[in-house]
Amino acid sequence: MTNMAGFRSLAVALALGAGLALADEGMWTFDNPPLNQLKERYGFTPGTEWLDHVRLSSVRFNDGGSGSFVSPRGLVLTNHHVALGQLQKVSSPAKDYAKDGFHARSASEELRCPDLELNVLVSMEDVTAKVLDSVKKGMSEPEALRARKATAAKIEKESLDRSGLRSDVVALYQGGEYWLYRYKEYTDIRLVFAPEQEIAFFGGDPDNFTYPRHDLDFALFRVYENGQPVESRHHLKWNARGAADGELVFVSGHPGSTERLDTLAQLEAQRDHYLPVALAVLKRRLAVLRGYAAAGPEQARQAANQIFSFENSLKALEGEYEGLKDRALMAKKAKEEAEFRRLVAARPELERECGTAWDSIAAAEKKHVAAMKRERYRNLRGSRMAALAVTLVQYVAEVKKPDGERLDGFHESELDSLRFQLFSPAPVYPGLEERLLTDSLTEAVEQLDPDDPFIKAVLGVRSVADTVREAIQKTKLGDAAFRKSLVEGGPAAAAGSSDPLIALARKTDPFVREMRKWVEDNVESVERSAGEKIGRARFVAYGKSAYPDATFTLRLAYGTVKGYPMNGTQAPPRTTFYGLYDRAHSFNLKPPYHLPARYTERVGRLDLSTPLDFVSTCDIIGGNSGSPVINRNGELVGLIFDGNIESLVGNYVFESEKNRAVAVHSAAIIEALRKLYDAAPLADELAGAASVSDTGPR
Amino acid sequence: MTNMAGFRSLAVALALGAGLALADEGMWTFDNPPLNQLKERYGFTPGTEWLDHVRLSSVRFNDGGSGSFVSPRGLVLTNHHVALGQLQKVSSPAKDYAKDGFHARSASEELRCPDLELNVLVSMEDVTAKVLDSVKKGMSEPEALRARKATAAKIEKESLDRSGLRSDVVALYQGGEYWLYRYKEYTDIRLVFAPEQEIAFFGGDPDNFTYPRHDLDFALFRVYENGQPVESRHHLKWNARGAADGELVFVSGHPGSTERLDTLAQLEAQRDHYLPVALAVLKRRLAVLRGYAAAGPEQARQAANQIFSFENSLKALEGEYEGLKDRALMAKKAKEEAEFRRLVAARPELERECGTAWDSIAAAEKKHVAAMKRERYRNLRGSRMAALAVTLVQYVAEVKKPDGERLDGFHESELDSLRFQLFSPAPVYPGLEERLLTDSLTEAVEQLDPDDPFIKAVLGVRSVADTVREAIQKTKLGDAAFRKSLVEGGPAAAAGSSDPLIALARKTDPFVREMRKWVEDNVESVERSAGEKIGRARFVAYGKSAYPDATFTLRLAYGTVKGYPMNGTQAPPRTTFYGLYDRAHSFNLKPPYHLPARYTERVGRLDLSTPLDFVSTCDIIGGNSGSPVINRNGELVGLIFDGNIESLVGNYVFESEKNRAVAVHSAAIIEALRKLYDAAPLADELAGAASVSDTGPR
Repeated sequence: MTNMAGFRSLAVALALGAGLALADEGMWTFDNPPLNQLKERYGFTPGTEWLDHVRLSSVRFNDGGSGSFVSPRGLVLTNHHVALGQLQKVSSPAKDYAKDGFHARSASEELRCPDLELNVLVSMEDVTAKVLDSVKKGMSEPEALRARKATAAKIEKESLDRSGLRSDVVALYQGGEYWLYRYKEYTDIRLVFAPEQEIAFFGGDPDNFTYPRHDLDFALFRVYENGQPVESRHHLKWNARGAADGELVFVSGHPGSTERLDTLAQLEAQRDHYLPVALAVLKRRLAVLRGYAAAGPEQARQAANQIFSFENSLKALEGEYEGLKDRALMAKKAKEEAEFRRLVAARPELERECGTAWDSIAAAEKKHVAAMKRERYRNLRGSRMAALAVTLVQYVAEVKKPDGERLDGFHESELDSLRFQLFSPAPVYPGLEERLLTDSLTEAVEQLDPDDPFIKAVLGVRSVADTVREAIQKTKLGDAAFRKSLVEGGPAAAAGSSDPLIALARKTDPFVREMRKWVEDNVESVERSAGEKIGRARFVAYGKSAYPDATFTLRLAYGTVKGYPMNGTQAPPRTTFYGLYDRAHSFNLKPPYHLPARYTERVGRLDLSTPLDFVSTCDIIGGNSGSPVINRNGELVGLIFDGNIESLVGNYVFESEKNRAVAVHSAAIIEALRKLYDAAPLADELAGAASVSDTGPR
Repeated sequence: MTNMAGFRSLAVALALGAGLALADEGMWTFDNPPLNQLKERYGFTPGTEWLDHVRLSSVRFNDGGSGSFVSPRGLVLTNHHVALGQLQKVSSPAKDYAKDGFHARSASEELRCPDLELNVLVSMEDVTAKVLDSVKKGMSEPEALRARKATAAKIEKESLDRSGLRSDVVALYQGGEYWLYRYKEYTDIRLVFAPEQEIAFFGGDPDNFTYPRHDLDFALFRVYENGQPVESRHHLKWNARGAADGELVFVSGHPGSTERLDTLAQLEAQRDHYLPVALAVLKRRLAVLRGYAAAGPEQARQAANQIFSFENSLKALEGEYEGLKDRALMAKKAKEEAEFRRLVAARPELERECGTAWDSIAAAEKKHVAAMKRERYRNLRGSRMAALAVTLVQYVAEVKKPDGERLDGFHESELDSLRFQLFSPAPVYPGLEERLLTDSLTEAVEQLDPDDPFIKAVLGVRSVADTVREAIQKTKLGDAAFRKSLVEGGPAAAAGSSDPLIALARKTDPFVREMRKWVEDNVESVERSAGEKIGRARFVAYGKSAYPDATFTLRLAYGTVKGYPMNGTQAPPRTTFYGLYDRAHSFNLKPPYHLPARYTERVGRLDLSTPLDFVSTCDIIGGNSGSPVINRNGELVGLIFDGNIESLVGNYVFESEKNRAVAVHSAAIIEALRKLYDAAPLADELAGAASVSDTGPR
């Protein structure tokens, strides 16, 4: 395989066409910000200093979200729903911070989170040539995949040894580029403030992923090192005036994944196979969770975070599914792909290189779909402890191998974070775990052949219920010290353990490994190879005017504050506190439209015209939750917490007319902290001592 | 043609199927209220007294709306937008009541409306047999149509002579039934109160036909007779608590027209021909009106009512058009029709009677479409004075004929109302008239053949601009006395008049008559005959479990107060004053989201949680504007003013999941009158002396 320099030279020669971002579209890597678009449309050119400052102020929440430093003393702003997992983990039956909120009135009251890791992207380095050069002529596709992975692991390990920083090699543009991202890791994170869930998630699941919206979905953490708050030189200055209508704004955060560059065959497989199954599984798990929660308030507390998370996923996937079922969308995708393929076919050197790539992917998808049940159901799913057990069994085996030969997830550069999770002291809820594991194994029995070897190996002659009951009730994996002892004992300890959940994991492990290898050899290697070819052809055709699909790495989106056509009329660019009270009273204060007591008791203190939430055309997706919205001065004007219902199709295509990112307004947080929460010191730390009336919301 | 008794006996034998109202659907005539549905679903059986009271409290606004008596002293409640035409007619360049509102603080300040006629439906009588019996075996379809019309005119005239009441024979179920409706007419109507248009029509055209909504779209008139307010024994008691979620409510009003029983061929003609042309015409007229209004504030004032009206029509028709373009809707219609036709085909006596009716209608539609341009453009349109001129020319000729032979619109029973309109002293705006008539004649020139006889007759060798300028600038028709003199002078006066607009009308009249006759002979007679047959077959198949299409006659709808799925979440059952202020501030108070000064100055006086607007599942359509929403006690709980965007397709089909009627809440009117308008006496007259806090909105 040749490297891509030869292709690059053609880039300027070709006309721009499909694949080019024409709207305020794109989740751009910080090495390739959309400078031309910003200059042409907004007369703005962010310099290196601006970009570095924004990047180094941005924080990744490794359990799946984004955030930013907002004070020089390590204060980090994110969403309540990003904080929800930790809020639950620091709660107890006696004190439910997830539901009732939390407020540390002094440093000593700040609560350390059991397993929250934050990352800051310190540097980026293009390692495309190194990774691609490791693939030699004549290698089979599985061999090529292994060569790429081994090289990536080597690059990561060398970087870790040299820098001491978490080092990830990231594939962008479906493998068209590889980059080494180095992260500063923080693991001493303390909870500072969270409002009540009623107000953070006002409107609940019905209003989730919709707009107009009235949520105060924020939380504050403080980052510590060596027992002291870090000095966060790079942090965003708070601008409580917010952004005006039509003003240019940016979002810096970590979109999780998109499939905009997927081929039609991949989209069709999603639509016809993966998504319907995923939706069905989510629905049955939700039924189990709700059944558990109905048993009592403590059960409800234990299940709350997962219920939120599953409902959230369900609504998002339903939106994506509707998108793929939309004929117009698929027709657009088909047209784009056909045009791209015609363009490739017209140039012999491109056609030779990647003319068959689309068909290869289609063939791989077909095989993958045929193996879908085995891949999905030959595993222990649903239960956190069961997942820990499988990971432990694999961990002790993998870490003994050379880095380049390990399973993904066990490379040297990943181990710090992995151990942090493995040894988390967060509470486990056996009753809940038992229900979920029972459901997932029951589903496996239903979906697999009666004599499937996985079922036979895991259950033998016993029932699902008996198997799971024993494993969950008798396991000691709820104790972090026991997990540590197993890891320290190495493969012998794991192999010899009589812990029934470990025993179940040992039986499961071979099936997981077999399936992983099958997928690598038959799907991943083929699609990576074909994806690389298509990715490079795209550079030739369109240059780097396109952005890569999201990969939970730091991206910069841009756009303007702007309403949109909705429901026969227009959605406003922002909502106000008036709207919060309207929606509450318009539903007679019935859940999920009830208000925390302080909101009714102190309504008279509020300037109800203060902006609460707002929308912008910035291109975001799940994972961006908690991202700062930034103006051209690099100041924080808002806090991303959602997309509108029209944004859900954004997994596949950005539709600029209606796709909107929904954010909490910077003024709302200050107004609430000062007037409802008696949290003036915190408001001062965020916004400085200036009162809201000085900085007047507009 | 036989009468329908023979068919009726089959009704019970057939299973219920398509065409049956399964949801809270239907605009029911007061002779056939949906008693079974009300009893089964709500355990409620309105008695004769209840029905009579509601009917006699209901008022038709003959210029196109509904209303109700709401005090024993003749006070009538309707919408601001129903009152808009009169508000403009009593305004002047110095005082714009349409925009700024009006408040008569005493009887002497109440303003008499120049040409507002209100009707109350006093009695109903089934005259189906009489009308149908007039059609004799062997008559051609045009002969049959003329026979029916002559008989109807005779029935009307006899009723008028006997009762002194306006008497209309109304065709229901596409001619399946004929009813004689007798109305008490009121013509001394005085304006009592109207709020500012900014608040009545808050959100303007963008928010029109949408929900959630925040409009205080009401106005109050008082009905006089013999110089005194009428004693309105039948009036609705005001209930300021409104209706609870899920509560049964009724709407009594005058839906203008629906096409739910139309055949597929008729719907396709609408979709492919009539609606596209109607939309194009509305758009060009709106452009003319906006151009005129842009010239200055007085021009804007003159054009305001028509701009509102045209925008309103445009949005409604666009919604209907979208509905007809929706494949699912048309597929549903096609399925219903196919099922009904199968059912007919399965019974020889039905098949013989009406098996060919659908094809007859389809053939007539085809001819009608081919003649569409002649029908539409061989006329003087757009200008009120030009329309008056044509009517005057026709009037003097028609009233000399026997009643049964006159053109529709000139029958004896209609003349009182017609003369009231003809002699209206309302101001005319020649500049505006000239623009509109110029545009419509220019369009005629564009659309008709260059040598079309109408164009030749009307323009001769002159330009449109010259012709219209002379006609409008030199006509004396702006003067009501001149119109009266022409009518009193009879055909000779009209024929001899040198008034240039009358001259233009004389040239136009033969084309209008010719086209009317052509449509009667080729379309109306065929469709009436076929419609009758289908209508009777429907009775046979489904009994009177269906309701007739709307005909701007009094109907009763029922339903419950209920939100609906919208925008990925749910629309609430009601909005509040909080929501008004939210929407205003969320658009930075920019028009059409600005507020009258009193609303910002007096915001502190309001209980902002007071309900403002609400939705119910009641089945309404244009013409229902101003209808009371009534609870089972016969009390007024709201005031219909709109449907949501999902209701626009209601012209063709009622989709109960999302079709909602939008009403002003009874509490909002009282709250505003007392706290914003210093109109306590009026509030007292409406609601009694009880304060809002006594009757507490919920």
